[in-house]
Amino acid sequence: MPSPLRLHPDRFLPPDPAERTAARAVYGETAGLPIVSPHGHVDPALLSENRPFPEPTGLLITPDHYVFRMLHSRAVDLDALGIPRADGSRAEVDPRVVWRTFCAHWHLFAGTPTRAWLEYVLHELFGVRETPSIETADQLYDQIAERLASPEYQPRALFDRFGIETLATTDAATAPLDHHAALADDDWNTGPAGPRVIPTFRPDALTQVSRPDWPALAARLGELAGGAVEDYASFIAALRHRRADFRALGAVAADHGAATPQTGRLPDAERDALFARALAGEATEADEAAFTAHMLMAFAQMSAEDGLVMQLHVGCFRNHDAPLFERFGADKGADVPLATEFTRSLRPLLSEFGSAPGFRLIAFTLDESTYARELAPLAGHYPGLVLGPAWWFHDSVEGMLRYRERTTETAGFYNTAGFNDDTRAFCSIPARHDLARRVDAHYLGRLVARHQLSLTEAREIGRALAYDLPRQAYRLDARESGPDVRTDGVHVHTDGVAS
Amino acid sequence: MPSPLRLHPDRFLPPDPAERTAARAVYGETAGLPIVSPHGHVDPALLSENRPFPEPTGLLITPDHYVFRMLHSRAVDLDALGIPRADGSRAEVDPRVVWRTFCAHWHLFAGTPTRAWLEYVLHELFGVRETPSIETADQLYDQIAERLASPEYQPRALFDRFGIETLATTDAATAPLDHHAALADDDWNTGPAGPRVIPTFRPDALTQVSRPDWPALAARLGELAGGAVEDYASFIAALRHRRADFRALGAVAADHGAATPQTGRLPDAERDALFARALAGEATEADEAAFTAHMLMAFAQMSAEDGLVMQLHVGCFRNHDAPLFERFGADKGADVPLATEFTRSLRPLLSEFGSAPGFRLIAFTLDESTYARELAPLAGHYPGLVLGPAWWFHDSVEGMLRYRERTTETAGFYNTAGFNDDTRAFCSIPARHDLARRVDAHYLGRLVARHQLSLTEAREIGRALAYDLPRQAYRLDARESGPDVRTDGVHVHTDGVAS
Amino acid sequence: MPSPLRLHPDRFLPPDPAERTAARAVYGETAGLPIVSPHGHVDPALLSENRPFPEPTGLLITPDHYVFRMLHSRAVDLDALGIPRADGSRAEVDPRVVWRTFCAHWHLFAGTPTRAWLEYVLHELFGVRETPSIETADQLYDQIAERLASPEYQPRALFDRFGIETLATTDAATAPLDHHAALADDDWNTGPAGPRVIPTFRPDALTQVSRPDWPALAARLGELAGGAVEDYASFIAALRHRRADFRALGAVAADHGAATPQTGRLPDAERDALFARALAGEATEADEAAFTAHMLMAFAQMSAEDGLVMQLHVGCFRNHDAPLFERFGADKGADVPLATEFTRSLRPLLSEFGSAPGFRLIAFTLDESTYARELAPLAGHYPGLVLGPAWWFHDSVEGMLRYRERTTETAGFYNTAGFNDDTRAFCSIPARHDLARRVDAHYLGRLVARHQLSLTEAREIGRALAYDLPRQAYRLDARESGPDVRTDGVHVHTDGVAS
Repeated sequence: MPSPLRLHPDRFLPPDPAERTAARAVYGETAGLPIVSPHGHVDPALLSENRPFPEPTGLLITPDHYVFRMLHSRAVDLDALGIPRADGSRAEVDPRVVWRTFCAHWHLFAGTPTRAWLEYVLHELFGVRETPSIETADQLYDQIAERLASPEYQPRALFDRFGIETLATTDAATAPLDHHAALADDDWNTGPAGPRVIPTFRPDALTQVSRPDWPALAARLGELAGGAVEDYASFIAALRHRRADFRALGAVAADHGAATPQTGRLPDAERDALFARALAGEATEADEAAFTAHMLMAFAQMSAEDGLVMQLHVGCFRNHDAPLFERFGADKGADVPLATEFTRSLRPLLSEFGSAPGFRLIAFTLDESTYARELAPLAGHYPGLVLGPAWWFHDSVEGMLRYRERTTETAGFYNTAGFNDDTRAFCSIPARHDLARRVDAHYLGRLVARHQLSLTEAREIGRALAYDLPRQAYRLDARESGPDVRTDGVHVHTDGVAS
Repeated sequence: MPSPLRLHPDRFLPPDPAERTAARAVYGETAGLPIVSPHGHVDPALLSENRPFPEPTGLLITPDHYVFRMLHSRAVDLDALGIPRADGSRAEVDPRVVWRTFCAHWHLFAGTPTRAWLEYVLHELFGVRETPSIETADQLYDQIAERLASPEYQPRALFDRFGIETLATTDAATAPLDHHAALADDDWNTGPAGPRVIPTFRPDALTQVSRPDWPALAARLGELAGGAVEDYASFIAALRHRRADFRALGAVAADHGAATPQTGRLPDAERDALFARALAGEATEADEAAFTAHMLMAFAQMSAEDGLVMQLHVGCFRNHDAPLFERFGADKGADVPLATEFTRSLRPLLSEFGSAPGFRLIAFTLDESTYARELAPLAGHYPGLVLGPAWWFHDSVEGMLRYRERTTETAGFYNTAGFNDDTRAFCSIPARHDLARRVDAHYLGRLVARHQLSLTEAREIGRALAYDLPRQAYRLDARESGPDVRTDGVHVHTDGVAS
Repeated sequence: MPSPLRLHPDRFLPPDPAERTAARAVYGETAGLPIVSPHGHVDPALLSENRPFPEPTGLLITPDHYVFRMLHSRAVDLDALGIPRADGSRAEVDPRVVWRTFCAHWHLFAGTPTRAWLEYVLHELFGVRETPSIETADQLYDQIAERLASPEYQPRALFDRFGIETLATTDAATAPLDHHAALADDDWNTGPAGPRVIPTFRPDALTQVSRPDWPALAARLGELAGGAVEDYASFIAALRHRRADFRALGAVAADHGAATPQTGRLPDAERDALFARALAGEATEADEAAFTAHMLMAFAQMSAEDGLVMQLHVGCFRNHDAPLFERFGADKGADVPLATEFTRSLRPLLSEFGSAPGFRLIAFTLDESTYARELAPLAGHYPGLVLGPAWWFHDSVEGMLRYRERTTETAGFYNTAGFNDDTRAFCSIPARHDLARRVDAHYLGRLVARHQLSLTEAREIGRALAYDLPRQAYRLDARESGPDVRTDGVHVHTDGVAS
């Protein structure tokens, strides 16, 4: 007998009646706010081309590494799920069969955020009212496929239905940006609060000087920037050129991923010698680590100059599973966090730029032990540092609660950047923001019930976390735009911070 | 006036009424399930010989390092407790006086799991109804001593009364296994779900090549395996031989303890040179670390071949208190955890064996910061990795809650191994399983009250954690056995995992 | 419209009715107990001279690094707050304007302990009944200024009103101690439980041998101790002399701050060579680290001999913000914690002194991951080690709850030292003790509602944490004194620990 799929109106809120009453009131304040999505991985082609989505498996299973990672952990081979291989091929497998495999393993997701997001998508977007299982798999598949075929499920229609105000994609520094260029010429992309879909400048590959393809990447950068990359100076000039290109298409931020947050300038001669090795295809992994630390300083300087908000995501060992990486390539779920050190590592950057007018760094970690020990004390001191939200493995009910419990008492709420959905799963965006708003309401409701905040304050803070702070942190509120959609006088703009 | 000793029926469950109602229902589902104890340190002689227990102090105080460690921390000398010394002697002290000292310090255990276990043992096993104190010490001593003298308190009678289905002991690779051999010939040891008491293969001492007695241990291994250990190849052959001996007596698992989880193969020449140094009694501590990392790879290969589940317990600085170690020897409470790194350390092993059919690693840590950061992401990816339960210092109410809070959202419930009591205190086994079942019910009740799980699911998961998952993780469910005692259709067997 | 400032009688207690009822009962037991403040940074001149406090800004804003750090994090320049600069100057700024800036940023403190402390001070001490804001700033300023002018707000009057029994200041080993000498001759300083205000011996600067002013400090030490510091032996003799001076003025403890807890003796020749370099002004940072580790051993030996309780505060990167440090000097909020290792680092000290009669070490950390992993297991073994309370960034509601959750299950309550306010903000002392008592009541109330403790026990433990344990840990209860103010039979004195 299939069990019903329900979304309880109080899900993720605290059970205690006093806490729940307050949490409900806070969530009631934020549930209907527009979605600001300043960091994510949606393909811009989706919205520039507005083509219908494929069938259910291609939408919900194959591209979602949270989903197939869990199935893999229970010995479901990625070929059996039709995951694309590193060589571009993929096993021939009926998407409906993959869907059945997913439904048969539904119980594995109990207690995970993946389940919370999928339940929301199934229930709210596709009208599903039964829990996935072997018995219900085919019926669900057909129901979702039918919906996807209708015009109301095209990407732009969903964008509006989701109430997204701004969506930032993440784009390599050497990306052609053609979809963003097309969007810039498209009236659809002009929303009441400014451009709807904007790019983000991500130059990581260009700092990875030990990559075999680095010389080719550097050459490509030069082509795009209209001047050959022949030395460090022309490399920097080309990066500046590209940042201007991104800004012209609406970018407000850059994103930097690195194994560690180590920062520090190389002496000029050392830097130039290293760069020459890189151009010659001879840079080592040690060169790459040193160059990355150096370039974080260089990028901070560019951010201080051109105003692109600097994001830093660190602490992940990529492609941990060597044979799986060989078969299926990157981003297939075998990324595993590492212990991370911020206090010493970020000191060169923060001492130089942390109080510079116009500079802003948003830092993300996968090592929760750094929240209270390092990141909150740093963000509670440096005006240029803001904490990014609980990230990746920690974008979950308990993960977000731990984040607030460990950062608020030292950094407060106003040194945090609100929520990032960080997703490539477009349809999950409202589910993720809804979960985040509920968990922030949970935390705020607890503070009200402990008499640490008034309910009025909790509601204001809830709105700030859901809407004002991401706009402020990413300087979206400084863009020319239509009328401000905010409806009350949250005090986040009285702080004297350049925004 | 002595205060009454009571066990509240809802102890350790959450106070919130909605959470408690759900938690009670989950606990109601698991309270009566058989006990599966796949990892512990009970002396097999206890059950092969079935001799009556000694008086109360020798049963409850002297062998329990949790108890005497706390007394020691308040300046009670171990000699005053009659703890055996390193030289085999022990201070002459009346067990009744030791018991009084323990009772006088009862308040020290407030808020600790030791108190929870002892209260259960005193109340449920010995019918004690008054809190230990100076005033009640003698009366309690007499009451317990009287019970111990009766046939119903002999080990096998208690084994049945406790509802133990399977109990695994931990046995050195060079152990004679005579008690296990005797049990194998004893009808008592054939239970409805297979052999009742089984050995576990623990070869740690044989990897500790810098020990002065290592050459003697290697020689002893060769004798037991029927062929001299003269080089690395004959060492490996002897280990394989012994694993077969253990399997013949019912073993389903091997256990490995190490300072760190470092894994990695030595080149053959280096390995052979190191082994020659070891045989000559000249191996260094650095040799030992390198050899241990190498042998973890070798043991993983053996596990992939012979199916013994590989357990890995790491991250403890043994015998921290040098003068105490000199006086009293190992395992006297001066073991202290260390920060531990899994992501890089386990990569060689997991890349090679983590997806190998038939391989299973169960990992334990004393560094809770690795739960969410490293272990859950690893277990949520590799089919061959399962998380062992909260271990040692963390086998407690808050410790087990932190474990679930930090592992479930990434690894789910089904990549965890259920509970291990890990105890040498036979009489505490039901107390420990009861506490673990209550804390899992606590956590599940919270998820129900937050509308993250239905109560039906929570009950199924509760049963899985208490019974099915340990049987599956340790492959006890794959043994030939009598009728399955499970009573409902938990879905843990639909995952396609070799078990 | 200004919002009212209220202090809810149940603030910081758990919302669940069963937990709250128990927590209230525990707090009711401790709310009125005398304040024992064995570690803090109040200027002894305050109480020896008993001069009235300055106006509100000079009392509450300028000296409180928690307050101005948060304002700085939102780009309020320290000059705009009138913070004294490194060169002794300060920007000319009207204190009333600073007060307005503070009030305009009141929302930043939501959810922080600073807000909890300030609300208590404003409400309880100054009768403020409106929340700080731009609108209320001037009125609050005037109201507080008026109170400060009255005799009831002089320091000694407040000392009595606060119910402080003992207050320890922190004094450099080379401090003249003139204010303490004056207090020793002042009848006011003789309270019913012994001297009211006492010094604490802090020799950190004397171990920092790479400081440019170290030779001058060593010379100053020699002058104060009546014998020139010419070599290591005369250095040690001078330190012993000064410890005796401190003890004569009532000191019960020494305090040691270091970057890491590394301990370990230098060989004599190495030590003497290093000391000669230091006297010559040529010691390096590596010398300083090695000498600090050595001196911690030497100080432990002195503590074992003279009975001064040894406190160890470690794990902070001082003056992280280089340009700010250059402008404003030390202790201006740019101190950031570091990951810390205790297990290996403290082993030399604990193996040698951890079980020595008369020795006591109280350890503090800023790395919460060490609570359950290292510190609780160490304190749960060594009779000479007691855990200091949640420190600095962790002296907060969630920080103190995490401390109890992570230490109690292994170390129990009785291996902890109760509360330290650690403050230089005299007026915040009752606010900080009140918060700590409420959070301990919160934790104990939870244990009662989970049926882990009886309410009677929880009340006894609450009293121990608030009063008995700090007196015992710092040996205040061993001083000659008037009648004991304790009112019931808490069992902390039955443990056989030398106190």
